[in-house]
Amino acid sequence: ALIALLAGDGIGPEVTAAACTVLGALALDLRFEEAPVGGAAYRVAGHPLPPETLALAERADAVLFGAVGDPAFDALERTMRPEQAILGLRKELGLFANLRPARMFAGLEDASALRPEIAGRIDLMIVRELTGDVYFGDKGRGLTRTGLREGHDLMRYDEVEVARIARTGFEIARTRSRRLTSVDKANVLETSQLWREVVNEVARDFRDVTLSHMYCDNAAMQLVRDPGQFDVIVTGNLFGDILSDQASMCVGSIGLLPSASLDSEGKGLFEPIHGSAPDIAGQGKANPCAAILSAAMMLRTSLRMPEPAGRIEAAVAAAIAGGARTADLGGTLSTGAMTDAVLAALG
Amino acid sequence: ALIALLAGDGIGPEVTAAACTVLGALALDLRFEEAPVGGAAYRVAGHPLPPETLALAERADAVLFGAVGDPAFDALERTMRPEQAILGLRKELGLFANLRPARMFAGLEDASALRPEIAGRIDLMIVRELTGDVYFGDKGRGLTRTGLREGHDLMRYDEVEVARIARTGFEIARTRSRRLTSVDKANVLETSQLWREVVNEVARDFRDVTLSHMYCDNAAMQLVRDPGQFDVIVTGNLFGDILSDQASMCVGSIGLLPSASLDSEGKGLFEPIHGSAPDIAGQGKANPCAAILSAAMMLRTSLRMPEPAGRIEAAVAAAIAGGARTADLGGTLSTGAMTDAVLAALG
Ligand SMILES: CC(C)[C@H](C(=O)O)[C@@H](O)C(=O)O
Ligand SMILES: CC(C)[C@H](C(=O)O)[C@@H](O)C(=O)O
Repeated sequence: ALIALLAGDGIGPEVTAAACTVLGALALDLRFEEAPVGGAAYRVAGHPLPPETLALAERADAVLFGAVGDPAFDALERTMRPEQAILGLRKELGLFANLRPARMFAGLEDASALRPEIAGRIDLMIVRELTGDVYFGDKGRGLTRTGLREGHDLMRYDEVEVARIARTGFEIARTRSRRLTSVDKANVLETSQLWREVVNEVARDFRDVTLSHMYCDNAAMQLVRDPGQFDVIVTGNLFGDILSDQASMCVGSIGLLPSASLDSEGKGLFEPIHGSAPDIAGQGKANPCAAILSAAMMLRTSLRMPEPAGRIEAAVAAAIAGGARTADLGGTLSTGAMTDAVLAALG
Repeated sequence: ALIALLAGDGIGPEVTAAACTVLGALALDLRFEEAPVGGAAYRVAGHPLPPETLALAERADAVLFGAVGDPAFDALERTMRPEQAILGLRKELGLFANLRPARMFAGLEDASALRPEIAGRIDLMIVRELTGDVYFGDKGRGLTRTGLREGHDLMRYDEVEVARIARTGFEIARTRSRRLTSVDKANVLETSQLWREVVNEVARDFRDVTLSHMYCDNAAMQLVRDPGQFDVIVTGNLFGDILSDQASMCVGSIGLLPSASLDSEGKGLFEPIHGSAPDIAGQGKANPCAAILSAAMMLRTSLRMPEPAGRIEAAVAAAIAGGARTADLGGTLSTGAMTDAVLAALG
């Protein structure tokens, strides 16, 4: 299989290198091709998502992605910033379903800001819509009739967009505890009223799954109060962005959690949910686990190799249970030493 | 002073009654006039915000508000639902600044889902814009060109709207630790780019306040990881809705926290941040503290009576420190018994 390796900015190259090392130890039939993305691509090609990079991503069987974002480009117009690359990839590749698992690793209960008995129960999956909402609606800057500067972004969904992500949410709930929470803000937003209506329609095909609806503000509260109550959460692009980062921090560190962004055929892009972390870039301090677990998700989901995927996941869990800790987890291991701990657990 | 008393739905009447009892014990020169609002108003007048109720709110020196929301009206169109009443009051009265303090009460460190040493440091104020954003932009339902159902809500701000809430944020930061965090999603939203630009402009008049910018997803994460890092947070209507509920739960219970919604002259509406809680309505179980503290905020802010305001706040803190606990805090006190505990502490 051909893997497009888009390492990107900041700690992206460090953590994707670690993921490749782990994949390499498994003697799978994988070919890697690299291409620049984000600020790194802007530097060499004048655009955060050069056409060659997009073409590689389209041609590949899966994309292994690092991170994009670089404050050096803050002065550029929005459409030329590093982050635009990931938004462009999601849109161009039709990656509408973002899967973000968050679960507590044995031994890490103390790393969470939540009480151990609350944090220990976290095992949820956020299914975030990724190609619609206020992210991709009509947006711009302008002047009002009285000459004031204004800015606007249209939040928008149609029934097909909602139905396909709802279906993904229900299908995933079926492989877990069969409980799905749909999060919206239907007391204020028309977009959310459509969302709720369509989710209820799709629910008719999944009578074995228990569906409930929750407002976004309440969900943010419940994720602090008792995150263990959730199994699968399905929500829109913006609410999913906020809630998934919140959930990941409940687990203790954003450095542990992978994500998959899938198209309608299951082809996907796999990336840590953490960003480029420019403050620690190049220092060999980053936690490689999120990237390593993203590689495992890639094997399982896009490449249909569940066996090596499971081996990687078990090795990360074993390394952590054995006490391996990078700085974000209060430890002293470097990126390389943490990777070695995972390799050792891989046997 | 004339107080418009809008008790509303669910536990609204119970908790505002408690607040009135506490105000009554202070022998202040206050006159109360009641009017129906929310589902209760729909039942008697066919509209969640009848013209007479709005007129009273306009005429009064301040509005003491309970809560609105009632699942019995879920089938009504959005504009007729109980929640519409609070949105209408905010808009019609020009209540653009929503102040939501969240601080840990001594003795309640154990009620939070966060570790006591993390929860104990929480003392922050969220300043939420309340009359713009995706709440009040053009919204509706329709059909796409290919006949699909769609829903849309326009997120929008102009520079005057941003500047006045930014100014409120800076002014409040000046009365506290002089640190202001502005929360947006400028890597994706044009609205947020305008927001950031204007906040930076207003900052020139407040060089004694340290301003920083944070993305909303990161803020949701940081509020779990280390809420003690924040002093004042200023943000838009939608992000503020989510983050303030999240912050309040970090403190242990949504039943403790008041809010003020102010117009440009400091006149305002004061309400607990909790909702109507239909599941416990009429059972005398609700925590009255949020409503009682909202009454204190009213005295301090709109009525310029800081002395009785301080007495009420001290009495609530003393009652809690003395062990008074309603069910939401793991205790057994009824609404009335908790109110009595506050009255006793008031002396
Ligand atoms: C970098 C940014 C555009 C992106 C998003 O908001 O989707 C990130 O926060 C994420 O969640 O992947
Ligand atoms: C009831 C609802 C419309 C309201 C809001 O979203 O503003 C509530 O959640 C709040 O925060 O006061």
